[in-house]
Amino acid sequence: MGLDTDIDKIPPHLRKEKDPVFSFNKAIIEATQEYCVAYKPNLAFYEAYGLKGWEALEKTMEYLNEKYPEQFTIADAKRGDIGNTASRYARAFFQELQFDALTVAPYMGKDSVEPFLEFQNKHTILLALTSNQGAFDYQTRNLGDVALYKQVIKTSQSYTNAKNLMYVVGATKASYLEEIRRLIPDSFLLVPGVGAQGGSLQEVCRYGMTKNIGLLVNSSRGILYASNGEDYAEKAREKAFELQRGMQKELEKRAL
Amino acid sequence: MGLDTDIDKIPPHLRKEKDPVFSFNKAIIEATQEYCVAYKPNLAFYEAYGLKGWEALEKTMEYLNEKYPEQFTIADAKRGDIGNTASRYARAFFQELQFDALTVAPYMGKDSVEPFLEFQNKHTILLALTSNQGAFDYQTRNLGDVALYKQVIKTSQSYTNAKNLMYVVGATKASYLEEIRRLIPDSFLLVPGVGAQGGSLQEVCRYGMTKNIGLLVNSSRGILYASNGEDYAEKAREKAFELQRGMQKELEKRAL
Repeated sequence: MGLDTDIDKIPPHLRKEKDPVFSFNKAIIEATQEYCVAYKPNLAFYEAYGLKGWEALEKTMEYLNEKYPEQFTIADAKRGDIGNTASRYARAFFQELQFDALTVAPYMGKDSVEPFLEFQNKHTILLALTSNQGAFDYQTRNLGDVALYKQVIKTSQSYTNAKNLMYVVGATKASYLEEIRRLIPDSFLLVPGVGAQGGSLQEVCRYGMTKNIGLLVNSSRGILYASNGEDYAEKAREKAFELQRGMQKELEKRAL
Repeated sequence: MGLDTDIDKIPPHLRKEKDPVFSFNKAIIEATQEYCVAYKPNLAFYEAYGLKGWEALEKTMEYLNEKYPEQFTIADAKRGDIGNTASRYARAFFQELQFDALTVAPYMGKDSVEPFLEFQNKHTILLALTSNQGAFDYQTRNLGDVALYKQVIKTSQSYTNAKNLMYVVGATKASYLEEIRRLIPDSFLLVPGVGAQGGSLQEVCRYGMTKNIGLLVNSSRGILYASNGEDYAEKAREKAFELQRGMQKELEKRAL
């Protein structure tokens, strides 16, 4: 579940609180954790509020790691920089904030990704095929003789500690998952784009599911802002349950 | 000048200060501003220290904008995300922190870049050809019939408000600038990699300079950590002066 918390979209009564973003996150996590396996704050939503936003993020992570240590946590930050700088980002997200995983952009290549892969028991989720329209600008076009997104997957599989890699593949491009599974039959994929962006859970599972499931399907806005009233947490819980039930059906179909 | 401030590399006597990163930045800016036209904090170095790091960045930006408003400021953040999220990053860097410019990664395409370009009097500096070894993984390989980094330049020139675009081209790949100037004869380029990374200022100017200069040549570590003693600011000033003098010579050669 994406924690893309937008102060303009949370219920108005929460805005009076000392830290509205954290109060909202806490209530949402409490209400939905039974149906979730992972939480994914998108960094942009916290950085937009400066110091206060960073504080809300730190508190959210402390809360998650203390109260629900079994939940997998993903910093959706899409970072990518030269080696000595990448190490700094790794420290920020894996050590300071204690995230389990971080999304990383592939454009700068091997020495911008490997510093993240060095961390044991931490996962680096490389952008492969994103859920947005702009994915067709470069990602789906051929680099050499295969599409850039496939080249990213193939090349990165040769990086040191590649076992710590996962990939982002947008739910809005579910049919591509069939070919992706030929390249990486077992890798875990983070799949955004179900919900507000219109991706189909059934299609994603049809083409992307493995015998170990292999999918982390994300929804953000569709759950977070299910209601703008006093019942926001309850409605978010219902939406999370709906998605979890959908996933449960897919698992049962495959006897997983 | 890059403000990649690393607490492990600043003079030990500063570590006793309340905010060592800000104290260091302030002294460095004071000592070098006469020879600089722009300051470029790399976000990774601030995020690595969590809340304290973000605070040091805010104070550095307040100081720069109040005391040296003529200095151009660049958030070297290499962000890139889907539209509604990109807008949040734009707000974080252009409005909250009041940077003049932000570096952005191109992998997610048009709708991940245009939200930044909407801001008047702000500049979006797209990664084209980076200074690191990993640039050869994808950037220099052909996407269709031209190298990916050229495709990024060509495609992005058609984005709405493309006039607000600048590009990152690494000094370590100066000879590529000749071809880049055929595509974008007038665009300003941010050129990292002179100094610690080994790029040559003369080569960069030879292939990249325009009649409006068109280059922002960056050095970070080579200036920041010129000395680890009490004389760190003075030594940084000398290094900044050296680079400025080098640039001055290049301008004089061309009667600019």
